[in-house]
Amino acid sequence: VTDPRKPIAHPTGATPGESITSLSNSTVKMMRALERKKERQETGLFLAEGARLAEEGLLHGWRPAYVLVGQDALARGRTRDLVSRLEAAGARILQVNRKVLEGVSRKDNPQTLVSAFHMRSRSVSDLAADEGGRWVALYEVRDPGNLGTILRSADALGVRAVFLIGSCCDPFSTEAVRASMGSVFATPVVNCDFAALERWRREGCVRMLGASMHGAVRPDGASYGERSLILMGNEQSGLPASVEAECDQLVRIPMRGSADSLNLASASGIMMYEAWRAQNFEGAR
Amino acid sequence: VTDPRKPIAHPTGATPGESITSLSNSTVKMMRALERKKERQETGLFLAEGARLAEEGLLHGWRPAYVLVGQDALARGRTRDLVSRLEAAGARILQVNRKVLEGVSRKDNPQTLVSAFHMRSRSVSDLAADEGGRWVALYEVRDPGNLGTILRSADALGVRAVFLIGSCCDPFSTEAVRASMGSVFATPVVNCDFAALERWRREGCVRMLGASMHGAVRPDGASYGERSLILMGNEQSGLPASVEAECDQLVRIPMRGSADSLNLASASGIMMYEAWRAQNFEGAR
Repeated sequence: VTDPRKPIAHPTGATPGESITSLSNSTVKMMRALERKKERQETGLFLAEGARLAEEGLLHGWRPAYVLVGQDALARGRTRDLVSRLEAAGARILQVNRKVLEGVSRKDNPQTLVSAFHMRSRSVSDLAADEGGRWVALYEVRDPGNLGTILRSADALGVRAVFLIGSCCDPFSTEAVRASMGSVFATPVVNCDFAALERWRREGCVRMLGASMHGAVRPDGASYGERSLILMGNEQSGLPASVEAECDQLVRIPMRGSADSLNLASASGIMMYEAWRAQNFEGAR
Repeated sequence: VTDPRKPIAHPTGATPGESITSLSNSTVKMMRALERKKERQETGLFLAEGARLAEEGLLHGWRPAYVLVGQDALARGRTRDLVSRLEAAGARILQVNRKVLEGVSRKDNPQTLVSAFHMRSRSVSDLAADEGGRWVALYEVRDPGNLGTILRSADALGVRAVFLIGSCCDPFSTEAVRASMGSVFATPVVNCDFAALERWRREGCVRMLGASMHGAVRPDGASYGERSLILMGNEQSGLPASVEAECDQLVRIPMRGSADSLNLASASGIMMYEAWRAQNFEGAR
């Protein structure tokens, strides 16, 4: 039986119990810099805060590179177990103090464990439309909170993948990862241009439904078919006319009152829900 | 014809064109402090950033107290017109520079107009359930972004009012107001305890549907009736069992994948959409 208060045996390959307390440590500095897209692109790493996200990353086979863990947290058996599995999956473990966790998370009340995972990129050719299913494409989504929330909804509502079309915000930004609640690890994300999306969905016989103020049918009146792709526009300007022209159907969520639109993530949730409802929630738990 | 480049006649009751450039000006200091709930409660004021929110406030008859406006923005006829209407509605107008706007908004890229409006509070007795309709109650909602997004959805999807039950975040926080996109002015909000909500809805014969993981019916299988109240739980813990026990029906949004829940605002959007769909989107534009 291991004493749960004892530091784990070889946390950093250094003296057990050694703790990094300085924000000028080179690994800590690198992890702090991952808030910037440039640094994420150069290192191929991104931050996942908290034990839950680290569990999701491992569950879906993503490779952890570094883990910062508070020494207090290591006293808990569950955290020790998670840290051992992260180490076995290739992560370098660093014990840190609260100041370092606050510095990396840029929050006053940080999670007691912060990981850096290796990014994974997928391309259109990785996605098969052979079986039936539902997909979502976001046209120039700009808000990382919206993007993360949409990845979470896509995961929960059984969407097979999310396409990011044109100039979108980064799904690996800390804010997007946080809002996704770990679904960034579960939901495949593909960056591509609209022409590539069009080729993919035509080859796969996937019906494309655009959400638009110009839509003539309600979400519950649209034809989703066996394979459907829901296309959502930019927060400010929606879909360009040329893109709307390529859709098989334009769908308009009914509205009243003074609000002239729903939040993008809320509208996407309603569309994903309706597309799944049309398939009688097949595969629901 | 007025020269659009000329400062408006009596912007602050002071010399036309006078501009406040210091964050230590007492009105500017007070407005900066409105980010804190304590200050909002003491002054009865809250911040609304941007021209669009100020327009919404006026449209729904809320009283503006102060308006900070950038001098460049005043060169635009549309802004001058809005500022005149805000002044006529009782606001004191202060011309400020960009540094002051950044300081009050706490953003690098601030709106060129920031208003402080007088809060309005409503009580349960202000809400009549005589006609048919849909209402939403949020049980201990904690995230101001979620609350603002839900107010926006409620407005767009024809919900008559939103109840905040127990210890909720503040609908007048800058983050909630921002996420509401002005719907905080349009959608009546009532703070009360669960017992008061129960009395109100029983007296009005309003059916109460709780969104819950323990629900036995899907959103499209629930009975909403002519008057329905959708009750949504806290982001972390959902609804307490004692509250679920009072509901006429518990509704569960189908899910799959590794995400164990939807974002609260997304789930609320789906529920509001379904409740309105059950009434055939009556009153939609």
